[in-house]
Amino acid sequence: MSTDFARTKAMFHLPDGIVYLDGNSLGPLPVAARARVAQAVSDEWGDMLIGGWNQAGWMDQPRRLGDRIGRLIGAEAGATVLGDTLSVKMWQALASALAMRPDRRIILSDQGNFPSDLYIAEGLTKMLGDGYRLVTVPPEGVADAIDENVAVVMLTEVDYRTGRRHDMPRLTAMAHAAGALAIWDLAHSAGAFPVDVANGGADFACGCTYKYLNGGPGAPGFIYVAPRHGDAVPALSGWLGHDAPFAFERSYRAGEGVQRMRVGTPPVIQMAALEAALDVWDGVDLADIRTASLQLGDRFVAGVERHCPELTLATPRDPAERGSQISFRHAEGYAIIRALTAHGVIGDFRAPDILRFGFTPLYIGVEEVDRAIDIIARVMRDGLWDRPEHRIRAAVT
Amino acid sequence: MSTDFARTKAMFHLPDGIVYLDGNSLGPLPVAARARVAQAVSDEWGDMLIGGWNQAGWMDQPRRLGDRIGRLIGAEAGATVLGDTLSVKMWQALASALAMRPDRRIILSDQGNFPSDLYIAEGLTKMLGDGYRLVTVPPEGVADAIDENVAVVMLTEVDYRTGRRHDMPRLTAMAHAAGALAIWDLAHSAGAFPVDVANGGADFACGCTYKYLNGGPGAPGFIYVAPRHGDAVPALSGWLGHDAPFAFERSYRAGEGVQRMRVGTPPVIQMAALEAALDVWDGVDLADIRTASLQLGDRFVAGVERHCPELTLATPRDPAERGSQISFRHAEGYAIIRALTAHGVIGDFRAPDILRFGFTPLYIGVEEVDRAIDIIARVMRDGLWDRPEHRIRAAVT
Repeated sequence: MSTDFARTKAMFHLPDGIVYLDGNSLGPLPVAARARVAQAVSDEWGDMLIGGWNQAGWMDQPRRLGDRIGRLIGAEAGATVLGDTLSVKMWQALASALAMRPDRRIILSDQGNFPSDLYIAEGLTKMLGDGYRLVTVPPEGVADAIDENVAVVMLTEVDYRTGRRHDMPRLTAMAHAAGALAIWDLAHSAGAFPVDVANGGADFACGCTYKYLNGGPGAPGFIYVAPRHGDAVPALSGWLGHDAPFAFERSYRAGEGVQRMRVGTPPVIQMAALEAALDVWDGVDLADIRTASLQLGDRFVAGVERHCPELTLATPRDPAERGSQISFRHAEGYAIIRALTAHGVIGDFRAPDILRFGFTPLYIGVEEVDRAIDIIARVMRDGLWDRPEHRIRAAVT
Repeated sequence: MSTDFARTKAMFHLPDGIVYLDGNSLGPLPVAARARVAQAVSDEWGDMLIGGWNQAGWMDQPRRLGDRIGRLIGAEAGATVLGDTLSVKMWQALASALAMRPDRRIILSDQGNFPSDLYIAEGLTKMLGDGYRLVTVPPEGVADAIDENVAVVMLTEVDYRTGRRHDMPRLTAMAHAAGALAIWDLAHSAGAFPVDVANGGADFACGCTYKYLNGGPGAPGFIYVAPRHGDAVPALSGWLGHDAPFAFERSYRAGEGVQRMRVGTPPVIQMAALEAALDVWDGVDLADIRTASLQLGDRFVAGVERHCPELTLATPRDPAERGSQISFRHAEGYAIIRALTAHGVIGDFRAPDILRFGFTPLYIGVEEVDRAIDIIARVMRDGLWDRPEHRIRAAVT
């Protein structure tokens, strides 16, 4: 392995006494983000004022950081741009894709997809009317449901609850064979393992940057548009997607390629944190990330299954069929996750019964996994979760 | 006057030797934003990790800060929410409004409206097809163009180039009398003078928070939905606009009132800066802001006209017809603005010939105005703008 994980671990602030297995929900703070954000606030905004748009390169941030993320997902240079949120970027991808298949009316997805993607698709079809509809099938039924009526196949590569991973190249090829387009949500892929959108044939891909990319709470989304679709109809035609935003023309002229997917003013302070987070990836080989992550996951599964027979594995055992998270099921999953948090192991709960743990070798190693197993074993063996305080529902679960 | 402007001025970081008359483009740094952002980065993200969504109240930020902005624009409590950008929020307002007038096809706006609003409307009508179209007329022709074919009147209250101010209550009443809805863009209104969306009858209002509200580069947009339209069709139906986001239901159920206009994960770090910026408004009376701003503007007009006859006033002289900015026209406006920047007076240029200066008494007083007049007089008298280095176009103007 060429990646030095001791070096990357030292680049994060990890509170004492905690095993953080929730980087698949919110990555931890890269130490350098503190100074980078302070610089953006004080030296750039404070001292450059409006001049920061040119002098500090704010206006180019979405393109520049987009390209850095593009390298992590196997995108061609200049085909990825940052902005807004994953949901907004998914809306743009869907609306553009539907416009490219005007004779078709179906968006196909799976029932395990992240609800926001389904909501966004549902809202779009309602708005368009005219027979447009969202069809969802069980994850294992997607391949059989792809036919010549489908305009777009919209899938999240890794299931947010079970960690099951779709076969992106295969399903994309099937979509293309049926004349449909493929949009991939990479929320649980980007930074979790090697992704190859270019060779995988994805037409569009979207993702967020606050999970495995560690960009911080509310870090922006990204969108990839295959260069062959550079003339796609831009949905949400805002001024920063215009070919010449500062000419203030009265009519919209779409910018070049993926740049037309920009909409409004980019979140400069927020992106400063992301910029520091992306520095962590210099010198990291995603193949090493994958190897180490699978080892950690296997070790975790073996340990938990040995000590806690009442927890049922929800994630496929076959490494090829899973992402970077391990999930178990238990009817009292919520209380168990709360109890684990109280004892220093942070994972998260997803309704109705999923306990979810992320394994990212950037800052998690064998030692942390073993500690987590010990604590989970104790919490389950001693029934520490079965207390009133662990059943109180928080606003965000 | 009850507002202590010496106190508010001390709350901002203003670089030495500069007169900053561009707060209508990007407000300066509130000193407290440094610590507030550092707190969000280190104490919240760093130490609370995923727990910050509950413990630090991140999830509720858009509603909480939305209400604080609501108070500055005369909104009812609970009718304003933050998120995304002004362009995205405008898209949502337009799409929702069109759905409320299904028998009409016209969005009416004026030719001086900010291009992004026009682009967003243009894109929406193209997407909807079916006869939908954007009609633009000269600003002074809006009243006469409102008729029973118009679904939505979409206007920016204060013209970004000339500073001319529309009569919001009058045009809104005319729209309503014709059966149309009114959407107001408050980009150059919120924080610039008293706004009263509730009594003014606005159906929807959108704005940004990085100009007069000083939230920092890329601070999010806001949207107001009149409580009587609380059941409006939510456009861009993302998970955080769902009635129960963390139930992860498969189908969308719109949240209550304006909360359904939330889309994706809010930009927590970015909003921390905005939170500190909103603290500046405690104890500030917007009527005082208006009085002082008009006085400063009048003083500036008188001084510039006395010394620089070659600059032509573009802003209405009548205070009732203008916002908080003063604009002049000159064919060499771009080079003049660059020269002024080099000599310590920061305004901005808007194509083709507008020199734009903002007057916000939060941190600008008579002394700064007089200094600006002196420098402008010298730059014009001595032709200091007529140099090659001032003609080089920057990426962002």
